Amino acid sequence: MTGLGGGTVRHGLDLELLARLAQQAESRIVLWVLDGLGGLPVEAGGPTELEAARTPHLDRLAAEGICGLIEPVGPGITPGSGPGHLALFGYDPLTYEVGRGVLSALGIEVDLEPGDVAARGNFCTVDAAGDVVDRRAGRIGSDVGRRLCAKLAEVDLPGVQVDVQPVKEYRFVLRLRGEGLSGAVGDTDPQATGVPARRAEALADGAERTAELVGNFVEQAAEVLQDENPANMVLLRGFSTLPDWPRLPDVTGLRAAALADYPMYRGVARLLGMEVLASEAGTDARLDAAERAWADHDFFFLHEKPIDAAGEDGDFDRRVDLIERVDAAVPRLLALEPDVLVVTGDHSTPARLRAHSWHPVPVLLHAANVRPDAVERFSERACLAGGLGPRLPASALLPLALGHAGRLRKFGA
Amino acid sequence: MTGLGGGTVRHGLDLELLARLAQQAESRIVLWVLDGLGGLPVEAGGPTELEAARTPHLDRLAAEGICGLIEPVGPGITPGSGPGHLALFGYDPLTYEVGRGVLSALGIEVDLEPGDVAARGNFCTVDAAGDVVDRRAGRIGSDVGRRLCAKLAEVDLPGVQVDVQPVKEYRFVLRLRGEGLSGAVGDTDPQATGVPARRAEALADGAERTAELVGNFVEQAAEVLQDENPANMVLLRGFSTLPDWPRLPDVTGLRAAALADYPMYRGVARLLGMEVLASEAGTDARLDAAERAWADHDFFFLHEKPIDAAGEDGDFDRRVDLIERVDAAVPRLLALEPDVLVVTGDHSTPARLRAHSWHPVPVLLHAANVRPDAVERFSERACLAGGLGPRLPASALLPLALGHAGRLRKFGA
Repeated sequence: MTGLGGGTVRHGLDLELLARLAQQAESRIVLWVLDGLGGLPVEAGGPTELEAARTPHLDRLAAEGICGLIEPVGPGITPGSGPGHLALFGYDPLTYEVGRGVLSALGIEVDLEPGDVAARGNFCTVDAAGDVVDRRAGRIGSDVGRRLCAKLAEVDLPGVQVDVQPVKEYRFVLRLRGEGLSGAVGDTDPQATGVPARRAEALADGAERTAELVGNFVEQAAEVLQDENPANMVLLRGFSTLPDWPRLPDVTGLRAAALADYPMYRGVARLLGMEVLASEAGTDARLDAAERAWADHDFFFLHEKPIDAAGEDGDFDRRVDLIERVDAAVPRLLALEPDVLVVTGDHSTPARLRAHSWHPVPVLLHAANVRPDAVERFSERACLAGGLGPRLPASALLPLALGHAGRLRKFGA
Repeated sequence: MTGLGGGTVRHGLDLELLARLAQQAESRIVLWVLDGLGGLPVEAGGPTELEAARTPHLDRLAAEGICGLIEPVGPGITPGSGPGHLALFGYDPLTYEVGRGVLSALGIEVDLEPGDVAARGNFCTVDAAGDVVDRRAGRIGSDVGRRLCAKLAEVDLPGVQVDVQPVKEYRFVLRLRGEGLSGAVGDTDPQATGVPARRAEALADGAERTAELVGNFVEQAAEVLQDENPANMVLLRGFSTLPDWPRLPDVTGLRAAALADYPMYRGVARLLGMEVLASEAGTDARLDAAERAWADHDFFFLHEKPIDAAGEDGDFDRRVDLIERVDAAVPRLLALEPDVLVVTGDHSTPARLRAHSWHPVPVLLHAANVRPDAVERFSERACLAGGLGPRLPASALLPLALGHAGRLRKFGA
């Protein structure tokens, strides 16, 4: 992220520094992500979801460990799930930006290789003049979406392999695979009705051929779909390529395993070189899988989605209940005897706002050699007084976990 | 501060990032700057000025809102008024440096256009050998200074418009307007007596002609002033040009209004593209003007100068009294129903030090969707426990205000 004044904002530490200092150790780190953990009081003076929950096990970990609140992207910035997780894995999300097309592709487990270009797509409705009249084609059902994606398999581009995968309802992901493709192509989605779709434009030198191929794809798609109603056209946006970033195992020497029910989080983990393990859905199955993988890995990313989903639904009580369920699973996790256990979220999703928010996220770090603070309870308010501070850049958590795991050498003599 | 990965550490967020994420909303932000707000106890164990003041309204805002302390430039660094304010407006003052000549020109409302060069000037006394014997010409009165500035209108430079405006006593501002001028010219002020004024030197390629013009100005000024006593010569310093920075309204989409009694603050606001509104002096008149402008603006910078001036005078009790007066005006401001209200200062000016200081400045942010902390009182000590933390970079306040005002989009998917 280069500023207008030439300054670059960095949160946390550099991966290059971590790679320099990383050393092997007989220690295991668990990063337990309660998606959307941070909350807000519903009424002034009331508790947040985490404060309303009865969490004796998390409270004990907070009392024994060191606490604080993390800021995934920056002050006032509401993180998307991708950036929120990248930060937790030590990748500053302002430096390591991943395109929306790629995130969508990861979200439905489209196989992506370096050099592939991915974009988000909508089926839409255009009138006889070619103007968009409905950007979502009347929200066609997922079954229709699937059928239309299959139909688009007819599209043939010279020298490029085309793959169209349904997401949900009117949404799909387009993947182009071939030599010399670029993600620097402008959206064809005009984000408005009453106007035609935009021509795909090259946004950088070297993207001209990809832009032409995209234009060709759109023309053929329009032909293939011409007799469909209402979904007689496509709109594309968020062109991007799989980034070629340092892999977490290469940076840290960790044998990293990811256990997540949702494809998008598995995708981000895979993108960073973690091994994505198979497991049934749910916390218990996840812990079973972690037990099985314990001997062969030393970093475990465990992802709990429902607390976030309940926030998006505005369901305060369900969030409280789900947090209490995670708390009840703590003893099973502790039975594995992780050397470092971090419990936090990738962002806040207060039920009151029914959306991700910019509010910092409570975090606890539990380890034998932690210097404890005075925090006795795992909650937003209590964590303010914690040793990790009230606004720790989230990307600082990984170095802290590595440090407490004896996995970072001394810097300098 | 360059990191191993080539990253540069900056305080706060990038304006480019803000511009990317900014969105419109039906919300109004008020930034109420109590200049030099931060203080110190006069004796060990005693209260600061803010702690000694009775501030029931500010305390209520602190209890309902989120608090902390801000650091305008960096740890241990005492901010000037320009950098202190730039930080409050989201412009990292280490990235956005404004020259002293320009600041002085803004301070007396000299009309500056991009490309103009401004410098601070002193009338001084030189002896027959040309050595400076008094850098301030015996502190001549303002009336004399005004007369001498008018006299300097005789100076004629080829292709350049010369403007000399009195500031106070022996001080003036020189403005050069013309094609291809540069601010990279060295001071002629030797900052010592017993030596001659320095030759104006070009400090960068392309500044040679400007340096020559400045030399020419100084020669002609010496001639014009030769029969004056004691002010028979000029010294110049702080050459600079009006910077071409991103404008706050362009970055944020805010219709920004500035209400300040002192020219220097109006000048900084104008520099950032705010609309500087007319008002009588004083808090009440300022609030009248804010009321009138309420419908047509969504960002209000209100500047209160006297608390700082009392600090410079070393007058603890006057500071206490002035803080209480601002507190009494809070209900009028709240009657406007701002969505986000930030109350803070641009730096500390403890009466005990009679000067600006490096101590962090208390801040409160009041908004409907704030996550409250345990702070119940607006004071330096109480704010230490606040959710904004004890040393928030001041340039993080604007993104925080925008976030709480619903004016920043989610970062990433």
